[in-house]
Amino acid sequence: MSKYKYHLFICTNRRPVGDSKGCCATKGADDLRSFFKEEIANRGLKGVVRANQAGCLDTCAMGPSVVIYPEGVWYTVKNREDALEVIEKHLLKGEIVERLLMPRSWARG
Amino acid sequence: MSKYKYHLFICTNRRPVGDSKGCCATKGADDLRSFFKEEIANRGLKGVVRANQAGCLDTCAMGPSVVIYPEGVWYTVKNREDALEVIEKHLLKGEIVERLLMPRSWARG
Repeated sequence: MSKYKYHLFICTNRRPVGDSKGCCATKGADDLRSFFKEEIANRGLKGVVRANQAGCLDTCAMGPSVVIYPEGVWYTVKNREDALEVIEKHLLKGEIVERLLMPRSWARG
Repeated sequence: MSKYKYHLFICTNRRPVGDSKGCCATKGADDLRSFFKEEIANRGLKGVVRANQAGCLDTCAMGPSVVIYPEGVWYTVKNREDALEVIEKHLLKGEIVERLLMPRSWARG
């Protein structure tokens, strides 16, 4: 079995000011990553779920970008409210949070 | 289907000098990450395979640490020779590189 039931990768990439792609760092990704980490620990999920910092996930326009493996589900997580919904629905109940899914064109092969 | 056939996460975490856990950064992880990225592009796999930088994967003693999703296969990739073997066997032929697998106690849930 996979080491983690859910392994989240949260892009915290920072591009230079003025870069037309934008970046997740300027959209609050560092705070979101810390929030995920704390809330996962608070729920006793350490070792079962891991929230990892990641470099550019190449979905800059859709950021803050979060991908959850092994499923390969791609979310736009804009704020702590969104993050809480991912934790409470996806991580705790295994439900996909449809409203936060990236558009198919960004999230599928 | 998953956006990427193979999504590699390469830990490049750096801990303070003297930290007993050690870290992947001091074992050449940044070079390995660049090498994976270049070799994947050279083989025309851009968009199919992605080599991502990641923060601490919590397998410090086994680093440099690489996990490949969606399979969740954990490797110790010590040098460019190891990286080439992962590329040529795992990424191109779908074969597990047994000799580079992390011990079960580190890599399984």
